[in-house]
Formats: sequence, C-alpha cells, structure tokens
Amino acid sequence: MHILITGAAGMVGRKLAERLLNDGRIGQREITKLTLHDIIAPDTQPTENTSIRPIVGDLSDRSVVERLVAEKPDIVVHLAAIVSGEAESDFEKGYGTNFDGIRYLLEALRRQHYQPRVVYASSIAVYGTPFPEPIPDDFHLTPLTSYGTQKAVGELLLNDFTRRGFFDGIGLRLPTICVRPGKANKAASGFFSNIIREPLKGEEAVLPVAETVRHWHASPRAAVGFFMHAIGMDLEPVGPRRCLTMPGVAATVGEQIEALRNVAGDKAVALIRRQPDPVVAGIVSGWPTAFEARRARDLGFTADADFQAIVRTHIEDEHGGRAPIMD
Amino acid sequence: MHILITGAAGMVGRKLAERLLNDGRIGQREITKLTLHDIIAPDTQPTENTSIRPIVGDLSDRSVVERLVAEKPDIVVHLAAIVSGEAESDFEKGYGTNFDGIRYLLEALRRQHYQPRVVYASSIAVYGTPFPEPIPDDFHLTPLTSYGTQKAVGELLLNDFTRRGFFDGIGLRLPTICVRPGKANKAASGFFSNIIREPLKGEEAVLPVAETVRHWHASPRAAVGFFMHAIGMDLEPVGPRRCLTMPGVAATVGEQIEALRNVAGDKAVALIRRQPDPVVAGIVSGWPTAFEARRARDLGFTADADFQAIVRTHIEDEHGGRAPIMD
Repeated sequence: MHILITGAAGMVGRKLAERLLNDGRIGQREITKLTLHDIIAPDTQPTENTSIRPIVGDLSDRSVVERLVAEKPDIVVHLAAIVSGEAESDFEKGYGTNFDGIRYLLEALRRQHYQPRVVYASSIAVYGTPFPEPIPDDFHLTPLTSYGTQKAVGELLLNDFTRRGFFDGIGLRLPTICVRPGKANKAASGFFSNIIREPLKGEEAVLPVAETVRHWHASPRAAVGFFMHAIGMDLEPVGPRRCLTMPGVAATVGEQIEALRNVAGDKAVALIRRQPDPVVAGIVSGWPTAFEARRARDLGFTADADFQAIVRTHIEDEHGGRAPIMD
Repeated sequence: MHILITGAAGMVGRKLAERLLNDGRIGQREITKLTLHDIIAPDTQPTENTSIRPIVGDLSDRSVVERLVAEKPDIVVHLAAIVSGEAESDFEKGYGTNFDGIRYLLEALRRQHYQPRVVYASSIAVYGTPFPEPIPDDFHLTPLTSYGTQKAVGELLLNDFTRRGFFDGIGLRLPTICVRPGKANKAASGFFSNIIREPLKGEEAVLPVAETVRHWHASPRAAVGFFMHAIGMDLEPVGPRRCLTMPGVAATVGEQIEALRNVAGDKAVALIRRQPDPVVAGIVSGWPTAFEARRARDLGFTADADFQAIVRTHIEDEHGGRAPIMD
C-alpha cells in the first residue's frame, strides 16, 4: 500500500508519517511506500519495510501536483495548507495553495481514473460567529476568514468528486491542536498551547484572554488517531455528506489551567502571566467554543477524555512521561 | 450608472434588462449603460437614455472576463451559468463556467480596485436531501449535484471577497422559476411549468410525478423583483452572511393544478395527462420543498402571494392578460 501525505513536514504530517511507519500496515495491508510532500524536504526516515519518496514543491504549481499523483497512491492524505494567519495576510498565497491547490489535486486524481481514498484536513475555521453552543452537525458553514472559506470550498469539492465516483473522500474538521509541541508561535490561537507547554518546561507563558474563554481542542495524538481511523474505516456508512466535525474537548482557559495544576502543580501554574490583549481577545471571540460532533463519534472517531488527558499526552509524547517542571 | 449583466440572453437576464431599460433609473441614479454578456448576442434593444454594449464569450475564458470588467461597471449582476442538467452531464463544462468562471470574475473585479456592487444568482440547488421542512436559514449547504456545488462555492467566495472589501456582494438563492415562458423543456423540473403553461395555450402537458410533490416557486416577475431589490437596497444590514434564500411559494402539484382550475377552469386542467416517470420522481424526491427565508423577507425581498398569483402573473406577462384557453 502506497500513501501520499501532502504537508508532511508539518506537525501533524510528521506525527502521522511516524505512526504509519511504526504500525507498518493498515488492517491487513502492508504500507510499502510513503510519498511525503511539502515545501521543504520532510526529515522522516524510511524503514526496511516502507520506502519514502520525498517531493518538494508548492501545490499552487500544477506540475508539482501532477508528480504527486503520477504513481497513483492508494491513499492521499491532504494536509498541506497556508495557515490561517498567513492566508489572511497574504490573499494571493492563501488562494493559490488552499483554493487552486486543492482544485489541482482533486482534478489530477480525477484524471488518473483509479478512485483512491482521499482524506482531507478541514478545520473548525469553517465556522464563524454567531452560532449556537454547541454547534450541531447540520449548522451552515459561515467562515469569517479566507482560510476558513478555502477549507469550506475544499469540503464542497470533496463531496462532489466523491459523489461523482472519482475517488472516495472523507474530510475531517480538526479542532484546535493543543498542546502544540515546539516553540511558542504568534498565531492568535498560540496561547492555548503556550500556557501549558511553556510552564511544563519551567518557562513563562503569556495569557492574553480571560479565563472564561472556551474552545475546542484535540491533542496531536488524537488528531493522528482521526487520520488513522479515516484511512482504515469503511466509508460506505458516511453517506454523501463526507465532511465531519471531529470530536474534541471543550474547555475554558480556566479549566485548562486547573488541568495543568492537577498534573504539574502550582509551580507550573505560577508561570502563566496574565497580560490582556484586546486584539487577540477580539479575534478569539469569533471562534467556535463547542460542537456536538455526533456523526463523527457515531462513526468511531474518538477524542481525548478531557483536558487533563491532553496535558498528560503532551508530557508522554514530548517529555518521555515527565516534564522538567515536575523534577 | 453602468450595469453589467452576465447571462443576459437567458430568461431572467432578458426580463431583468427590459425592466432596467423601462425603469431607466435605480433610485435617483439614471442607468446610462448596460453591458450585456452571454454566449450569444442578447437581442435587447437600447433606448435614448441607456446604451447597450454586448459582449459575446465564455466566462471560462479569462480574457472574456477581463473585457467585462474593464470599464468598471457600477453594478455586476452575475446570472451566467451552465444549468443543472448540463453541469451534471458535462463535468468539465460545468466546472469551467460555474467554478472557474466565477473565480475569474470576482478576481478580475478585485484587481480593478473599485468596489462595485455584485449581485450573484445562487440557487436552492445548494440544498440536498435529507433536510427539515421548512429549511431554516442556518441549515448547512448540502448540494447533491455539481451545479449546486458550484453555486455554493460561489457563495463562499462572494462572502469572503465582500468581507475583504474587494466589492459589496449579495447572493440570491432563487426558487425554481415557475411559470417559465417559452417551449416545454426536458429539464427534470420542467413539468412544474409545463403543466400550467401548456394548458393555458390549449395544449397537452405531461405530469410525471404524484400530486403530493411539493416544491418552492417564484414567478419570473418575482425573480426580477429580487434582483431589482438587491441592486438598489442598503447592504449594510445584511451583515457578513451575504447569501440569502429568497422567499417563494411552497405548493404541491395538486395545489398548482387547483390554482390553474381557479384561474382558467376545468378545460385547462383536463389537458394535464398523468404519465408517471419513476426517474423524474426519483430526482425530484431529493429536492427542497419549502424554506423559512426569514432573513430575506426581513430585508425586504417579497414573493408572489400564492400559486394562483403566479398563474395570473404568467397570463399577464406572456398572454397580455388573457390566455388562449380562456377565450
């Protein structure tokens, strides 16, 4: 079995590739090859059983897309995207990769006439305020960013191309990934991860919003689990509405902080510095807070148990089970 | 004031152009020019006060689109589309005009940097079964045709480009237009019009579905009224969700027939021949039956009073007030 991952050098892409290499198989079928695409060369290493073919290039370039699908991978996991902040600040770049790119990719797959499975990373950014709480599965998509718009367009194309029989698609609306490993980043959503990750390293983190802010989270491990499930599951019961809001953990910032306290103690929590930022608070106030995600749960997608589990998962995956602050 | 209409040789386009020429103005502003685009030359005639510039060409050709916007029309009414049946039978043609075409048009307007008003014809085909009855304004878009998918993509782009300030857009999800003038056509929806129009001419019409089938209708005159309202209204109160389901008349086929009887008598109704067609019945069973359309009504869009009014409007507009069967 040959699997293509676009955006394979990103955080979820790397973790998914590692999981696929570790498992070595999907059900009864061996994974013999991974094609790993990104704008930089992914550093994932091949194994005895699974070779790796790296492809470096931009999806807004149609010839790059043609190379990706030329060998007819059995599974296509489409993660590559210009992220929310950049798609907003650079209009043409965002539409180039997130709109033209997915059109080129789906169109190239159609022209290969071989009906692979396509797993598409969408986002809860397809929803914008106002909405009910929790948001039900049949609520309309109301993106308030170009990124959310582009993701919603991808969902529509995925549904139509699947209905047409060009491939067998499934789209996953990912929650905000928390705790993101790596460095603190400046995305408006960065603080959700920063206030957990940095204190666990013994470092200070800035909290720019009120503790009452509520949001929808999934750990990187849960996100990889969503993709693994989507790669292996029976798609027949999904029906024609192929894009699903993934289950997650709805938590207020206050609940995040209590989870950190329960896992790592007061010393960690003391490293969170309140520094209200009205700009960040304004952006975040338009974001979804909680979802029903009933269809995805019924189809076997599973979320983290609660926010404390998310903190523990981060410590297991990034600190080998024990964070510096706990020593 | 200069108004561009794409698809101006179509039924709604022709009627809208005539209405604009008759009125001669939008509010206080005179209409000095109409640019009328279609794949064939529109036969609408200019008046002393309003010149007409015809442009013939395909919207999937970027250079045609550039010519449409080069003179920076104040209002752009985008009606051009490959219709539902053809977009389904000819995949590439449908995506070429309905997907690439709207992208090119909106992008060309963005690059002109002058923020015109854009009025976009969407369709209730953005909804597909299953759905609640009536469908509320916040129900998700679930197209089950390529045409509906392409219309929904256009809605997303219109919202995002408006939010970005590139132009001031509004999208109208049109009901099925009934009674369509002209010849009986073979579209799956054709019978809704045929069973009224043909008997009024004293000719037989075939009814392929049960009388219990319910659907959402607007007369051509009401449809033109939606566009006139959208061209002249204040768009500020619409907010960021720029695409609205237009109000209409929910009527069963049985109610349509009773309306025909009330207006034109038993002799007209006797010309409807029942000839069940399981294929047509199957297609129609996936179509929406009724909508709340609350936002559009609150914003001043008005529907026909009932189906009897739709029949009378047809007789006024197409038969000068008295149909052949009534003589």
